[in-house]
Amino acid sequence: MQSRLETLDHIGIAVRNLEDAKKMFSDTLGLVLIREQELPERGLKIAFLSAGSTTVELLEGIEPDSSVAKFVEQRGPGIHHLCFEVDGIDRVMRELTDSGVRFVDATPRLGSEGKPIAFIHPKSTLGVLIELIEK
Amino acid sequence: MQSRLETLDHIGIAVRNLEDAKKMFSDTLGLVLIREQELPERGLKIAFLSAGSTTVELLEGIEPDSSVAKFVEQRGPGIHHLCFEVDGIDRVMRELTDSGVRFVDATPRLGSEGKPIAFIHPKSTLGVLIELIEK
Repeated sequence: MQSRLETLDHIGIAVRNLEDAKKMFSDTLGLVLIREQELPERGLKIAFLSAGSTTVELLEGIEPDSSVAKFVEQRGPGIHHLCFEVDGIDRVMRELTDSGVRFVDATPRLGSEGKPIAFIHPKSTLGVLIELIEK
Repeated sequence: MQSRLETLDHIGIAVRNLEDAKKMFSDTLGLVLIREQELPERGLKIAFLSAGSTTVELLEGIEPDSSVAKFVEQRGPGIHHLCFEVDGIDRVMRELTDSGVRFVDATPRLGSEGKPIAFIHPKSTLGVLIELIEK
């Protein structure tokens, strides 16, 4: 079998307020802030912090109908998704779909870093929201 | 400031059934099973899978009063906690406590690998359950 999910790229954490979350994860817990970005087309403000070999992405939904704002509204803030690198996102999506996995995104779209990404539906993967990113 | 949280050690995922979860994360998603363990004193069965530079820990609560079984009962299966390595768990716990962070474990205890661990209370860290492990 060819490879499917490889290295963890980042962990997404849904927060109510990005400034408060940056203070907690950076000033208090000691992770190192890497970059911040507004994604108005996705209704999001995000910040990335280094956690050694991986990255923590803090996500604040700035539009009430964004998926992150809805997540926080329904479940409270907390861990939102895991993103794994894949080598050949089209192939991996096709193979996983053939295995019965259902995707939120029918085809890959460009993520905040300009690389193709796609989210798997968490009902397919035991309640875990998984993002794939082309490596 | 001395270091606090460093590299991500593993991601804990709460599951209803460890066999089904191993099949999903290993056979379907392609992560590599490393080891399995029963922890009857914690009411748990666990399995570790390699995700490149980090590890995914699948946790099934085998006792209804275990924290993992309660988590699944209340919120459904899904991402449960993040575990970070620290250099000097006693010092880091003292510093974080001085910063207002509250711990589930008042003092470190031995985890499944025989290293000292402690869990931070998720109410202290924006809804994210964080485990510290001595590196």
